[in-house]
Amino acid sequence: MSSYSRFRTRIPVRPDDIDMNRHVHNSKYSDYVLAARYDQMERCYGMAMDAFLERGLSWVVRASYIEHKRPLRLGDIAEVETAIAAIGKHGVKVEFEILKEADGKTVAKGWFDYTLVCVAKGRPQIIPGDVAAIYSI
Amino acid sequence: MSSYSRFRTRIPVRPDDIDMNRHVHNSKYSDYVLAARYDQMERCYGMAMDAFLERGLSWVVRASYIEHKRPLRLGDIAEVETAIAAIGKHGVKVEFEILKEADGKTVAKGWFDYTLVCVAKGRPQIIPGDVAAIYSI
Amino acid sequence: MSSYSRFRTRIPVRPDDIDMNRHVHNSKYSDYVLAARYDQMERCYGMAMDAFLERGLSWVVRASYIEHKRPLRLGDIAEVETAIAAIGKHGVKVEFEILKEADGKTVAKGWFDYTLVCVAKGRPQIIPGDVAAIYSI
Amino acid sequence: MSSYSRFRTRIPVRPDDIDMNRHVHNSKYSDYVLAARYDQMERCYGMAMDAFLERGLSWVVRASYIEHKRPLRLGDIAEVETAIAAIGKHGVKVEFEILKEADGKTVAKGWFDYTLVCVAKGRPQIIPGDVAAIYSI
Repeated sequence: MSSYSRFRTRIPVRPDDIDMNRHVHNSKYSDYVLAARYDQMERCYGMAMDAFLERGLSWVVRASYIEHKRPLRLGDIAEVETAIAAIGKHGVKVEFEILKEADGKTVAKGWFDYTLVCVAKGRPQIIPGDVAAIYSI
Repeated sequence: MSSYSRFRTRIPVRPDDIDMNRHVHNSKYSDYVLAARYDQMERCYGMAMDAFLERGLSWVVRASYIEHKRPLRLGDIAEVETAIAAIGKHGVKVEFEILKEADGKTVAKGWFDYTLVCVAKGRPQIIPGDVAAIYSI
Repeated sequence: MSSYSRFRTRIPVRPDDIDMNRHVHNSKYSDYVLAARYDQMERCYGMAMDAFLERGLSWVVRASYIEHKRPLRLGDIAEVETAIAAIGKHGVKVEFEILKEADGKTVAKGWFDYTLVCVAKGRPQIIPGDVAAIYSI
Repeated sequence: MSSYSRFRTRIPVRPDDIDMNRHVHNSKYSDYVLAARYDQMERCYGMAMDAFLERGLSWVVRASYIEHKRPLRLGDIAEVETAIAAIGKHGVKVEFEILKEADGKTVAKGWFDYTLVCVAKGRPQIIPGDVAAIYSI
């Protein structure tokens, strides 16, 4: 487990997230993690995605891993907990765990490997010192 | 404007709702209305979709109309207001208006025409008296 | 029915289009029409969306109407037929019909009202003569 | 690399797959793999998902890993190649690679770990001999 701060975002399941199995569709869990990160970038780290874009920077997913434990269903609320696991030269690894609000049980967990890119050049970018500092809480 | 009660549901925009124009994707507005109706069926009318399904009934969209006024963007919160506009023999017409929470301005408005169906037969079903009563508030 | 040309695009149903009712999700029909228009702009009218963007122009949906006749299911292929119904000063009205390839039956039909906008100003734009000509086939 | 057969499915990018970065949205790659598997189950292995469901069986994702190499954009066509990597007692591991049709370059690759479940009990199910045989080509 990471020594960096863990943050939590509440994501209500929407009917359009449900698939033919009457569960939240697999690929939607990635979208829930993305939504949680956007929320936490702004609310918890104090640097919203917009602030990155204004500096000509953006984050892209290099790799991700997800393990499914239990389904979420219509009416459920997801609690998405994320934490920085490691800060590298050009990217960060973010661990996540998705819990079902009603019983606190783990729904899914895994990680995302994000690379910082310069939007103009489309190339990986060394993480600026102030960004590394913001993410080191 | 309908004489039936109007209810409101708050839907935060998620990053996966945003399209290449950096606005909420057109077809997602229908999904926001659907999410609002599911919420309001349970919370405001006291008869959740599950209660219909348990009685072998379901609602299907027969037709819909939507008018777009302004875009919603990442970080915005949609307020989805709906009201029954008319109750027919086999269905209901639901009016909606989507507002941007930050300024209260109208984002989109329109209506959905829903038909009640018997799930087993897949055929329109006369609206039972108790359902009509529930929707007449 | 329009006097302008009708074009057809084949769209295979994907598993992520299916919702809890085991049908193609309502709002996906709009996405099928959008996909058909993008295909037809390039393939049939000879002016792809990119060519509009390069001229600083884009199309936005002002209003849409859709009527559902029959469901599409997993394994089905949608045939999306569209035609310009009318060309106005700032926009075009596009009629569509979605058919199920296997039996040729109508799945849904309706129309989209698109407005041409100047991307920089975000304002409606008078349709240039050459664009009107391209769409008048 | 697996010693089992590799199969390929062609998936055209749709406009609703594109996100605010004007690339195919990350989570859509999982949906492309899912679409490819459904196609290949029917077309290449001769046992469509429906045939599993008729026997009271279904496949669920237990875990997945994906590595992103290059983006796909509007107008691109994805070639999704999959192969069984291993057949276990209750599941199969499927490797995939997504290529861009135009240049044959790798867009993404990874694997999915699927578990066979008994729909009625919602529990893992030992893979029947005939299913193992079908997947052993």
